[in-house]
Amino acid sequence: MPILDFDIITLGHGSGGMLTNKLLDSGVFDLLSNDILDERHDGAFLELHGKIAFSTDSFLVSPIFFPGGNIGELAVNGTVNDLAMCGASPKYLSLSFIIEEGLPVKDFWEILVSIKIACEKAGVKIVTGDTKVVEKGKGDKIFINTSGVGTINPKANIGKKNIQIGDKIIVSGNIASHGMAILSVREGLEFDSEIQSDTTYLNHCVEDLLNNFGTDIHLLTDPTRGGVATVLKEIAEATAVGIEIYQKNLPIDDQVASACELLGLDSLYVANEGLFIAFVSEEKAAVILEKLRQDTKGRNAKIIGTVVANHPKQVVLESAIGGKRVISMLPGEQLPRIC
Amino acid sequence: MPILDFDIITLGHGSGGMLTNKLLDSGVFDLLSNDILDERHDGAFLELHGKIAFSTDSFLVSPIFFPGGNIGELAVNGTVNDLAMCGASPKYLSLSFIIEEGLPVKDFWEILVSIKIACEKAGVKIVTGDTKVVEKGKGDKIFINTSGVGTINPKANIGKKNIQIGDKIIVSGNIASHGMAILSVREGLEFDSEIQSDTTYLNHCVEDLLNNFGTDIHLLTDPTRGGVATVLKEIAEATAVGIEIYQKNLPIDDQVASACELLGLDSLYVANEGLFIAFVSEEKAAVILEKLRQDTKGRNAKIIGTVVANHPKQVVLESAIGGKRVISMLPGEQLPRIC
Repeated sequence: MPILDFDIITLGHGSGGMLTNKLLDSGVFDLLSNDILDERHDGAFLELHGKIAFSTDSFLVSPIFFPGGNIGELAVNGTVNDLAMCGASPKYLSLSFIIEEGLPVKDFWEILVSIKIACEKAGVKIVTGDTKVVEKGKGDKIFINTSGVGTINPKANIGKKNIQIGDKIIVSGNIASHGMAILSVREGLEFDSEIQSDTTYLNHCVEDLLNNFGTDIHLLTDPTRGGVATVLKEIAEATAVGIEIYQKNLPIDDQVASACELLGLDSLYVANEGLFIAFVSEEKAAVILEKLRQDTKGRNAKIIGTVVANHPKQVVLESAIGGKRVISMLPGEQLPRIC
Repeated sequence: MPILDFDIITLGHGSGGMLTNKLLDSGVFDLLSNDILDERHDGAFLELHGKIAFSTDSFLVSPIFFPGGNIGELAVNGTVNDLAMCGASPKYLSLSFIIEEGLPVKDFWEILVSIKIACEKAGVKIVTGDTKVVEKGKGDKIFINTSGVGTINPKANIGKKNIQIGDKIIVSGNIASHGMAILSVREGLEFDSEIQSDTTYLNHCVEDLLNNFGTDIHLLTDPTRGGVATVLKEIAEATAVGIEIYQKNLPIDDQVASACELLGLDSLYVANEGLFIAFVSEEKAAVILEKLRQDTKGRNAKIIGTVVANHPKQVVLESAIGGKRVISMLPGEQLPRIC
């Protein structure tokens, strides 16, 4: 961390004037430096060729530091993954801070370093940004918006319209880890070992699948807020197909499952971060799964369901003992400020 | 406004689940509808050709409704203008809300309608978005991030490196209007007629200049937070040129000037929104000015200064009576939450 003559962020640091420049020049620009960002213009100048994906997300997770990550890497990974879900290779991100006055500079710096590392891992650059500060009590420590652009893999054709009856539904890993990591901190729960958020970048793993299986991958989506249940129900409603999922196939860490049980939560509704769902052709499902399981990001992947002609717009869960129940979207608010 | 069974926004509307869908389906998607947004995927699929500009800004103006506009159109115009300052034609915007629980739906709707109208005027589309809700007291009514992409005008070459000794500095209109509009509301000041924010879209006006004068326009920038003084000082420091500006040439509305005087504010530091500064070649400055003044967005444009070899990195203001003073950046925080 650079040596500074201020240790908390004040309103003046969001003025756009001398103090904003002082904050940014204290090491922020140096840390995130790249040829595009270094231009320091009102926007970034990019070269992108072909079809493009564009996505945005604001992050306001509380607490800002949690087991397995912090709001900085979450913000990078979140937008990287949204672009990956479009079949795109994420290239460039914007970074916009809304800071509550009084945030310790050391917290800000720790978040920045995480942002830098997350960008390096995912292979993306921060190319443009914005820093604003709100009065104490008008924000909560720090909110971060990232938006991003990437080039769509020419082998990819991702879209709800591609879903077909018979498609298999793959989930890339254990569900409910991010939500339970946040909740266990907030509720002060203690387990044998800490539940860690699954926040990570999924782009390289997804690119690998697209390069190998192209249009056999019909849809990609990440089940963040609202969990697996909500995202599947949205897809069923939008496409008018039916979806069946099998409880016994749902991958979940034992400790996360225990925590869900303890708190009376259905893991299907708990938020995920470093997880994706793929709708894939029936013929290639087994080989896609096998390939995915060779990647560390997909080693716990499972086929969890099938697209069916029965019960259009409905998601039906087959329980471990063979019973069936209809799945709705997350009805209220399970856990505010999860991402 | 659609008829709804809820009249305030609650945490559940940011859950990503049923209530988020209900809010978005209540008319939000219909209002902003276009072929790209209607896909409702994790990101937008775009086609852009050639060089691209990418920009982001978070808006947290207080109050959210002010004379001459509201936070919605400010958010659209702000990013549209940042892209225009890159010499780009803005095409697509993202839209991300951070709403404080308790925001009346009618306020949200009024902001949305302003966003729609501002997009239509500027000729841009909202193609992807995000909606989050924070607990009461952890935000302030609504914050909006817009990010945007646009294609760079092939005739444009905008950058600090293009600035040359002798360049003329044009300001496109009256300064300090936005800041004084916000401040007059906050301070409860009353004037003969209300001071209006200058928020507007500048892209068409700028495109027209670039199409006509191309590389004779060396740099474009909009003097928002920190005002004209701060942005000129930043440019002088970054390029190591000197800048002279002439007080008598600074265009300002009489009432805005009176308000500045009343409050003891220097109009050079007051924020602007629908205003740009152009550094242009000495030879073409007069014709560029003439052309700009034919546009309603530029009818008050003036040449306010010159790039000089003397006093590198310094901005010097020549007062109306011939005295000179050195201009620094905005030192502290003049007015938080101006944009």
